[in-house]
Amino acid sequence: MKKGSLVVISGFSGVGKGTIMRQLIQDDTYQLSVSATTRNPREGEVNGKDYYFTSVSDFQKLIENDELIEWAEYVGNYYGTPKKYVFDQMEQGKDVLLEIEQVGALEVKKKFPETVMIYIIPPSAKALKERLMKRGSETKEEICKRLIQAKKEADFVRAYDYVVVNDDLEQAVQDVKDLIRMSHFRSSLFTEDMMEFKEEIQNL
Amino acid sequence: MKKGSLVVISGFSGVGKGTIMRQLIQDDTYQLSVSATTRNPREGEVNGKDYYFTSVSDFQKLIENDELIEWAEYVGNYYGTPKKYVFDQMEQGKDVLLEIEQVGALEVKKKFPETVMIYIIPPSAKALKERLMKRGSETKEEICKRLIQAKKEADFVRAYDYVVVNDDLEQAVQDVKDLIRMSHFRSSLFTEDMMEFKEEIQNL
Repeated sequence: MKKGSLVVISGFSGVGKGTIMRQLIQDDTYQLSVSATTRNPREGEVNGKDYYFTSVSDFQKLIENDELIEWAEYVGNYYGTPKKYVFDQMEQGKDVLLEIEQVGALEVKKKFPETVMIYIIPPSAKALKERLMKRGSETKEEICKRLIQAKKEADFVRAYDYVVVNDDLEQAVQDVKDLIRMSHFRSSLFTEDMMEFKEEIQNL
Repeated sequence: MKKGSLVVISGFSGVGKGTIMRQLIQDDTYQLSVSATTRNPREGEVNGKDYYFTSVSDFQKLIENDELIEWAEYVGNYYGTPKKYVFDQMEQGKDVLLEIEQVGALEVKKKFPETVMIYIIPPSAKALKERLMKRGSETKEEICKRLIQAKKEADFVRAYDYVVVNDDLEQAVQDVKDLIRMSHFRSSLFTEDMMEFKEEIQNL
């Protein structure tokens, strides 16, 4: 069995990443990465499923021992992606999905160049604004902030491998699936096959 | 309209590249590159369709003026891929297919790093030998030579981007098509879109 891919999915705030992720993990060839965090569990959250809930000192050990693929501090809490979990899943042939923001994403790509980097964009800025407004969870000022943030992030989209336009949801999900499937055709995954092929010719 | 991709397809002798190419060009989003050659036209061959038939001096001018993507000498004749034809087709949104051997292929990739490099392999060395025998066009000695050549080429498969196993023909053709389609999602093709996106936010 071939190793699964590490797939980073990012996108502008409001682009519909969450919905795409939920659709993807319906399919059990994909495994959403489980993050470690120092924040307290919310009601109904399960340790090892929603998060690995850890103490600050344990989290610091994870950092010191280089056991995280990436980590960040957010509103006083630490969040990070444990290497072991991700690599175990990949060894089992699962494609592991990381939904992270740009800074963390570029850090992952730097450390693991084989990572498949996908950025989700809206069909237009107007469409993005409308989606943010429809969500109804942000004030006008917050929406404005998110659009300014999107403008900044637009410059780093080229650091990703692929761009998927989320115009039609089903199509976008299919495009992401196809991109992940195609990552299994990368020549680096065929090194052993080529060794065996050469041996086989020797013995024909 | 987005630019088409330049796609190099190579594979071991006898792997079924020709059949795959013939299936691909049924679909007119793909355009087979037309080579320039100094050899004489054979009966029924059409200038500008099968080949661009040129004189040796004209071919040398093409080389001198850097108008070829790659070129090679083979049994006393020159063969080369004219840049202009390929780039015109790509500008028109066509994916241009080049079926060339490894040395030329790696030369193309070096000059044009955006080239999508696909290598076709058989399911096994045994299967390759059987196909070469079934073809019936080579002697046992020639088949042996081709297998030895395949063994050498196996080391350079990693220089390609993708590997497609030609086990089931229809599946292999579909895989190649999917790889080409996915090349249109590369972030480098979205530079202008991101510029427009930023401007659009500015004017919202």
